[in-house]
Amino acid sequence: MRLTVDKEQFLKALNTANKAVASKSPIQTMTSLKLELSDKGLEVTGTNGDITIRTIVPYKIGEKQVIKNFTPGATLVSAKILVEVVRKVSGEELVMDVIDDAILKVDDGRSSFKLNCQNADEFVDVDLEPAGTTFEISATDLTALVEQSAFAASNKEQRPILKALHLEAENGRLIATATDSARLARKVVPVDPEARFVCNIPARIALDIVHMLDTAPAVRVSVSSNKALFEFDGATVSSRLTQGDYPLTRSIIPSTFNDTLEVNAQELLAALERVRILSNDSEPAVKISMSEEEIELSARSDNSGSANEKIATFNYVGDDLEVSFNSQFVIDAVKAVKAEDVTICFLGQMKPFVVKNPKDDSVVELITPMRIN
Amino acid sequence: MRLTVDKEQFLKALNTANKAVASKSPIQTMTSLKLELSDKGLEVTGTNGDITIRTIVPYKIGEKQVIKNFTPGATLVSAKILVEVVRKVSGEELVMDVIDDAILKVDDGRSSFKLNCQNADEFVDVDLEPAGTTFEISATDLTALVEQSAFAASNKEQRPILKALHLEAENGRLIATATDSARLARKVVPVDPEARFVCNIPARIALDIVHMLDTAPAVRVSVSSNKALFEFDGATVSSRLTQGDYPLTRSIIPSTFNDTLEVNAQELLAALERVRILSNDSEPAVKISMSEEEIELSARSDNSGSANEKIATFNYVGDDLEVSFNSQFVIDAVKAVKAEDVTICFLGQMKPFVVKNPKDDSVVELITPMRIN
Repeated sequence: MRLTVDKEQFLKALNTANKAVASKSPIQTMTSLKLELSDKGLEVTGTNGDITIRTIVPYKIGEKQVIKNFTPGATLVSAKILVEVVRKVSGEELVMDVIDDAILKVDDGRSSFKLNCQNADEFVDVDLEPAGTTFEISATDLTALVEQSAFAASNKEQRPILKALHLEAENGRLIATATDSARLARKVVPVDPEARFVCNIPARIALDIVHMLDTAPAVRVSVSSNKALFEFDGATVSSRLTQGDYPLTRSIIPSTFNDTLEVNAQELLAALERVRILSNDSEPAVKISMSEEEIELSARSDNSGSANEKIATFNYVGDDLEVSFNSQFVIDAVKAVKAEDVTICFLGQMKPFVVKNPKDDSVVELITPMRIN
Repeated sequence: MRLTVDKEQFLKALNTANKAVASKSPIQTMTSLKLELSDKGLEVTGTNGDITIRTIVPYKIGEKQVIKNFTPGATLVSAKILVEVVRKVSGEELVMDVIDDAILKVDDGRSSFKLNCQNADEFVDVDLEPAGTTFEISATDLTALVEQSAFAASNKEQRPILKALHLEAENGRLIATATDSARLARKVVPVDPEARFVCNIPARIALDIVHMLDTAPAVRVSVSSNKALFEFDGATVSSRLTQGDYPLTRSIIPSTFNDTLEVNAQELLAALERVRILSNDSEPAVKISMSEEEIELSARSDNSGSANEKIATFNYVGDDLEVSFNSQFVIDAVKAVKAEDVTICFLGQMKPFVVKNPKDDSVVELITPMRIN
C-alpha cells in the first residue's frame, strides 16, 4: 500500500474509527487500526469486539484530490501511535508507504516515522454488511431517542440486560426504553411504518453513536438478530446486541395520577443542587413536601447537617404529600424531558412518580421513591 | 458568632483558605475550616499540617459594608460542605449564626442550611506570626523565581530533601535551586540586601503559593528556622520547611562549554513533541545528532518503531556530537527559560548540558544525558 493523503481528512477518519479501539487489550488487533486502500478510498477500521467503526477517506471531495499517487493494499498499525503522529505532524499532506508488511512509513517532508505494522489479515473478522430490517431516520430523531432515554440504563454488571437500551419499532413508532429497576425512561419518535423489530443495544454504545453524528443529516439503520448497523456521513458503525429477554415495562407507567406539580425546570434543578449538598454522596436523598400552599425541598446528612428550601413559583393540585427520592434521578429526568416547565405526577408517598414535559408526551420519566425515616 | 456577610467576598476568602485543607484526613480538623470573627474581620483558616492559610473578609471595603449585624465568636465546620453551600446559594448576602457550638446556620433568605460544627478550640494550633528574616518582594519576581526552578524538584519520596526548593539570600540576590539529581534548575532574582537566609521549602507548596498571588502586587516574606510565611492581599500563608542538608550544587554548573546550539524554542518544542511519540512512555528518550551542517532529532521504541526530524533553522558551533536525553527534561527546561531562541551548551556526549536564555543569565537549566545504545 502506498499513497499521498490530505492530513485533515485522514485525521478526521482516524479520530472517528479510533472511538471503537480499546485503549488497553491483551489482543493486539483490538488496539490497532486497519488501513485498506480499496476502490472506495482509504478505509480505516477499528473494533473492540462490542463496537466496530469503519470510516472512509474518499479519493476526491468535490474537485479536490484527497488521495494521490496510490498503490492499493492494506496494513494494521497501533491506533494510539498513528493517531498521535497524524495529530502532531505539521504538513498538509502525508506520504504513507508499507514496506514488507512490517514497516509503515509516514512522512510529511519534515518529520519521518517508521511505524511497526502487521499484515492486515491478522485483523479480527468484522461484519459491517447491512442485514435484517433496514430504515432511514433523521439524526435529530435518533439523537433525541437515545439522549432522552439511555441515561436511565443500569451501569452495574449484575444484570447485563439492564445495561441495554430496549428498542421496539411498530406501527410507525420507534420506542426506546431504559431502566435500572429504580427508574425508567421512555421516548418515542416516528419511524418508517415498514420498520418492525425488537432489539437491545448496549446503552453506552447507543450514546457513543449519537455523539458521533456531528453534522450528518440522516442515519441508515439495519437491525438483525445479532447486530445493529448505523451508516452516516462516510462512517459505518456496528454494535453487538445484548441477548436475553428485556423486562416487560409496558404497563409500568400509570396513566392516571392523584397529585400534580408544575414547576420551572431551572428553578427546581438549582434548588435540588443546593439542598442535596446535605445528603449522602452515594444515594443523595431529597424529600419534597407538598401542599397547595407550599412546596419545600429538604435533605439531611447524619455527619454534616440539614438543608431546606421553598420553591417560590409552582402550581400544585393534590393532597398534602411527602415523597423522598434519589435527587440524581430527578435531576437526570428533569434535564431529559427538555422543557421550560416540568410536570411531576404522584400517586402516593411510596408509589412511582412521573416527570413529564407538559407540551411533549413522547417522553416519560418514571422514578421509584426512596424509603426515608 | 453571628453575622451577615457579602457572599462574593466570603466565597473568595473560603476558596483561598480551602487550598490548604486536606480532601481526606483521619484528623477531622484538617478537613475543616475555622471561622473567627475578630476585630480585623471574618478570619477563615485552613491547614493540612504542611501548609496553613488564613484569609480575612474585612468589615468594610471602601464605602461598602461587607460584614453587618455581628456578634464576635468562632467555630469549626466541614470545609467541603461550607464551600459547596456558599458556592451554590443564589443570594448576595448570607446570615450566619452559631447555635450552642453545635450548629452553624447559613441562610440567604431562600435556602436554609444547618451545618454540624465544632467548638473552635478543637482546631489544631497554627503559627501565623512573622518571625526571623523579613523582607518584601514583588509578586512578579517571586513568581518567576519559583516557576522557573521548582518544576525540577523530585516528586519521589525516597529523598525528601530533593522534593524541596532550596532558597538562599545574600548580597541582594535571592537564588532558588531545584534538582531531582538528573536535572537542576536555578533562578536568581534581586532582593533586599538586608535579607540573608538559607531554607528549603517543599517545591509543591512554593508553586501553590505563587499560583495564589492573583492580583497581589507584592508579598511580605518571613523566614525562620521552621517556617516560611507569605503575606499578600489579606492572606497569610505559612509553609513548613524541609529539614536536612541540601546537596551542594554551587560548582555543578560548568562555566565553559565546547559546543553551542542556538535554536528557536517553539520549533524545538514542536519537533520534540513529534519525535518522542516513538519513545518509551516512562523515560521518553530522544537523541540529538549535531554537526555544523545538520541537526537531527530521533527516537526509537522497540514496540512501535522510530522517528526522525531535521531542525530547519539553527546555529551550531562545535564538533559533531550525539547526545541522548529525557525529552521531558528538555521540554520543561526550554519552557522554563522563557525565551524566543534558546542556547544549549554541551561539553561532550555524556556530560551534563545547559539550556539558557541568551538574553537573560538569571536562569540556568542543567540536564544529565541518558545512556542509550
